[in-house]
Amino acid sequence: MNPYAIAIHGGAGTILQSSMTPEKEAAYKKGLSDAIAAGEAVLKKGGRSLSAVEEAIRSLEDNPLFNAGRGSVFTNKGKNEMDASIMNGRDLTAGAVAGVRNIKNPISLARAVMEKSEHVFLSGDGAMQFAEKLKLEREPDDYFFVAERFEQLKKAKETDSITLDHNDGSKGKIGTVGCVAIDVHGNLAAGTSTGGMTNKKFGRVGDTPMIGSGTYANNATCAISCTGHGEFFIRAVVAHDVSCLMEYKGLSLSEACKIVVQDKLVKLGGEGGLIALDTKGNIELVFNSEGMYRASKRQDESLYLGIYK
Amino acid sequence: MNPYAIAIHGGAGTILQSSMTPEKEAAYKKGLSDAIAAGEAVLKKGGRSLSAVEEAIRSLEDNPLFNAGRGSVFTNKGKNEMDASIMNGRDLTAGAVAGVRNIKNPISLARAVMEKSEHVFLSGDGAMQFAEKLKLEREPDDYFFVAERFEQLKKAKETDSITLDHNDGSKGKIGTVGCVAIDVHGNLAAGTSTGGMTNKKFGRVGDTPMIGSGTYANNATCAISCTGHGEFFIRAVVAHDVSCLMEYKGLSLSEACKIVVQDKLVKLGGEGGLIALDTKGNIELVFNSEGMYRASKRQDESLYLGIYK
Repeated sequence: MNPYAIAIHGGAGTILQSSMTPEKEAAYKKGLSDAIAAGEAVLKKGGRSLSAVEEAIRSLEDNPLFNAGRGSVFTNKGKNEMDASIMNGRDLTAGAVAGVRNIKNPISLARAVMEKSEHVFLSGDGAMQFAEKLKLEREPDDYFFVAERFEQLKKAKETDSITLDHNDGSKGKIGTVGCVAIDVHGNLAAGTSTGGMTNKKFGRVGDTPMIGSGTYANNATCAISCTGHGEFFIRAVVAHDVSCLMEYKGLSLSEACKIVVQDKLVKLGGEGGLIALDTKGNIELVFNSEGMYRASKRQDESLYLGIYK
Repeated sequence: MNPYAIAIHGGAGTILQSSMTPEKEAAYKKGLSDAIAAGEAVLKKGGRSLSAVEEAIRSLEDNPLFNAGRGSVFTNKGKNEMDASIMNGRDLTAGAVAGVRNIKNPISLARAVMEKSEHVFLSGDGAMQFAEKLKLEREPDDYFFVAERFEQLKKAKETDSITLDHNDGSKGKIGTVGCVAIDVHGNLAAGTSTGGMTNKKFGRVGDTPMIGSGTYANNATCAISCTGHGEFFIRAVVAHDVSCLMEYKGLSLSEACKIVVQDKLVKLGGEGGLIALDTKGNIELVFNSEGMYRASKRQDESLYLGIYK
């Protein structure tokens, strides 16, 4: 039996200890720890990494602190439009959705696209019709109405700025959640979910639903989930790039992540980070921003929790 | 001055000489040759590869024979929903749109997203609002109404099949158009445009608008445009994979294309092909299907045109 391992992120960006209260910090840590526990419960029973990824992300989506699911930020039109994707390292199957509304857990919809449709990527109204056909759990608008997020929209509209995430007046946090896991069968999986950017217009799609950019898993190399300024992550095909540096150049997970996040992305101007896991159970939680909500847990080891640099 | 070169495709799939009339074949060849001429006119004057790619693709989009722009196939709801993307090898900037309607030239909208927005990927109604703001050319529904395409939808609905493209009763052709080019300044560019799949439902998005999967350009390696069963091209991150095999493994363009299209895609079950160009002006037109509409032209050389294996 392969030892299991799991890692999650809850977004990266300008997360400064100086603007955090002890209560808020404790709440974030509890959210991260709950999500790890949800994923680990699956892995401990010998369940699949795919299910562990789904459960950990559902936990983060249900938590209003994170920009995904319930806590999604508001678009320019005051709506919540969410994106998610998931990939199975064993056979490279994948599912993704973009621009869905009123879906309680977009990550579960992405998994349904992977397993119950002949497609990989569904978007907008069509994706919601597919969810309806499968009777996926829906929630009314007020479920997603988090007062703090609405204040962020009002602020962003005043300055006509498109903020990447939560807030903090300044550049703010880059809101996405994600998970990578390896199960006792040695299979890797990765998933990512987001509520997008506050005040976003024009049906913008970031890297979250893009296989190869925001999410990638391949048993030959690694599982990756990204968070950051999506446009740069798309242009750099970040998740697949880490995998290719390992597969074709023979780099370690750590070397590959460092080159992509600390060198290539920085040169492009792309702020953010990623979580990564290889088949040996190595875990990397790498970011070039001020902070990244992150946690990881290896079988029979203690929980790691981090927020700042 | 670097010698310029350009290559295009008009889709891959089950294209059999036995089901082709001499008139139809001549029309396809004229369409390909016109598109090369449109792109070459830009390159000959010392223009940018990005503009050559846009002009060649506009020519294919305006031609009802190809599944893009005017000739787009019909969705299940009898609509034309189009996707396109473009990438600049010089600085890795990129633009993409998905699920747009009534836009005469989706490739020009993708370029506008790249150059006139802070985003890479816009979808659906939002992408159309962006097009409206920029006053991009629109056409009414009947401009896109090609009788043959509507017959294909009726046939597909009768059998509830989702066909990948044009038709032929059988599996049919896989409809996409694309272009790769290098200009006299030595810069690479790539673009792809499609009308999607006949009878498509649920807002399905294929590989065409996905940077790294359907389209990729990087002056360090190559420019790629794909056509085929998009789901497999997404899962295999095809265009970026060719680039990584060159950059990290030191393979030639020809070796990298062969591995990805004839080995990796075949093992996954993915039918289709791609066109590729490197900075030395090497051109690859590779496919694992029965045929691929294709053409290429190097500066001071004669035009190459191909349809079948």
